Amino acid sequence: MAVVTNLDPKRRKSTTPLDDLTALVDDDLKAVNELILANMQSSVDLIPQLAGYLIAAGGKRLRPVLTLAAARMCGYQGENHKMLATVVEFIHTATLLHDDVVDESDLRRGLASANAVFGNKASVLVGDFLFSRAFELMVGVGSLDVLRILSRASAVIAEGEVLQLQTTNDTETSEQAYLEVIKGKTAELFAAACRVGAVVANRPQAEEMALYDYGMNLGIAFQLVDDVLDYSAKQAKLGKTVGDDFREGKITLPVVLAFRRGNDEERAFWRRAMEELEQQDGDLERAQQLMAKHNALKDTVERARHYGAIARDALGLFPESPVKHALLEVIDFVIDREF
Amino acid sequence: MAVVTNLDPKRRKSTTPLDDLTALVDDDLKAVNELILANMQSSVDLIPQLAGYLIAAGGKRLRPVLTLAAARMCGYQGENHKMLATVVEFIHTATLLHDDVVDESDLRRGLASANAVFGNKASVLVGDFLFSRAFELMVGVGSLDVLRILSRASAVIAEGEVLQLQTTNDTETSEQAYLEVIKGKTAELFAAACRVGAVVANRPQAEEMALYDYGMNLGIAFQLVDDVLDYSAKQAKLGKTVGDDFREGKITLPVVLAFRRGNDEERAFWRRAMEELEQQDGDLERAQQLMAKHNALKDTVERARHYGAIARDALGLFPESPVKHALLEVIDFVIDREF
Repeated sequence: MAVVTNLDPKRRKSTTPLDDLTALVDDDLKAVNELILANMQSSVDLIPQLAGYLIAAGGKRLRPVLTLAAARMCGYQGENHKMLATVVEFIHTATLLHDDVVDESDLRRGLASANAVFGNKASVLVGDFLFSRAFELMVGVGSLDVLRILSRASAVIAEGEVLQLQTTNDTETSEQAYLEVIKGKTAELFAAACRVGAVVANRPQAEEMALYDYGMNLGIAFQLVDDVLDYSAKQAKLGKTVGDDFREGKITLPVVLAFRRGNDEERAFWRRAMEELEQQDGDLERAQQLMAKHNALKDTVERARHYGAIARDALGLFPESPVKHALLEVIDFVIDREF
Repeated sequence: MAVVTNLDPKRRKSTTPLDDLTALVDDDLKAVNELILANMQSSVDLIPQLAGYLIAAGGKRLRPVLTLAAARMCGYQGENHKMLATVVEFIHTATLLHDDVVDESDLRRGLASANAVFGNKASVLVGDFLFSRAFELMVGVGSLDVLRILSRASAVIAEGEVLQLQTTNDTETSEQAYLEVIKGKTAELFAAACRVGAVVANRPQAEEMALYDYGMNLGIAFQLVDDVLDYSAKQAKLGKTVGDDFREGKITLPVVLAFRRGNDEERAFWRRAMEELEQQDGDLERAQQLMAKHNALKDTVERARHYGAIARDALGLFPESPVKHALLEVIDFVIDREF
């Protein structure tokens, strides 16, 4: 049905490439949403309450869609990809819960964050539950290869988060160090989500790694653009506050570029605002002006295009198919999100 | 060497039954300590720093010793039990890190807690890393049965912790509800640690479950006595502050018993101190007096003896051996720790 919708020229304009990709795996995604709901249950009420709050808030289900689409592109005919997509969303949700505690965030997807509603303690522990449950579900699928990939991904995500903690408030952070952070905290799960689609379909190593590379580079591009959006005027549309990263002193590529391209007086500003966190009214606007002056946002998007190009080529060895086409379209969509 | 030490009558007095058990698996435990050190490494410096701080602080390594001893009692001749003991200690350490964040603890094993030194954020994330690494190591061992048991245990631990959060500050908590909390947060990992010793040795289901039951009941007894120690005058010897649970309003069995056995005026005291957390000088002493009046500490230890007796009988189907003997001796030791 959703596919038919996309063929209707009157409605075509309102769908995004991500909608198109999602439509191609729509039946599977419905099953995944049911698996998510069924498997976050617990006799301890607070667990489904808190998990449900975050999971029901929606989000794009981008990562599980990637798993479903990758399995579909690999010709997989079984059922296990749905459980793996569920596992990927559980791992993602667990990291979101812990991230919001670590970042002291008040908003997530336009709503009060789970930690703001239920408290940090519950967010930490329910994150632990979802993470453990993810492994339980994976064990049920029974593939040691999948377990290896997703346990490794989880460790790499945690390493990326810790590295980010170490670079927070450090204006000397290099582009390379920043890249290591986002590879870990964001791109590794994109990569693993795509890769397990090939693993579950028993495809050759080359296809497995092609999907890993696609996901990794898509994830890097996604995070780069996310970091741009945090300084973008149109960000409010996405239900996020602008300037969260700035207020926390989180050093993202736009800051790295503006700092490195700036003069002494500008660097003093960045140090005061982001290292010492002595922020005044107008500082966010000043930061945005400096980023404009040095093309920091524009060039961060250009960097994202570079990774997007790698993601595109990674899929080269797969034959043409509607799913492959949609996966390729998603790359530009991720990069050209409104900002 | 350590076994010889235990045969030396001059030194015998200074060893505990736990020392004796540990001595029986001493070579394996040395290897486990090396595995712990090797596997907590990361290119992200803060991870081995923080993990090393907590792990090097020592502790009794009770859970990995249980895994090693269970495998030994089951006649296991391979090497995988060492990695499983490492995994068990990693899971335990991860939960300690998150517990201390949730409990806002300042002390752990007589030292400043990791969150007090490195901050809550790092403790949450390094806990996540250790947990993920534990699964990576388990996958390396390659037993889906072990993965099933320990992923289930991890989910149950998280459920127990969340349940504890829900009962905190609720003086109406029943003994049964309290029991559910400690089964989850403490006893399940004891049980799983013991059980995997039989699994790795390919022993029949009955032995596997016997070791599970031993660990479960030992763990319950252990936690009951821990909760008694938090109100015990000699607690300072263990490097812990007395009254932590009281100050946090954590409802443990001594409180449950004193509250239920108390009169209206006493219940009003418990509600003020533990529900409303309006605590004054002398309140901890008052709590201790009321517990003495109602035999709350003594009877909590009696409850622990009940679970200890079940643990003892659980091992009945194993033939006599030095390790079995030591596992049985540890039960009374856990219950009769100085308080």
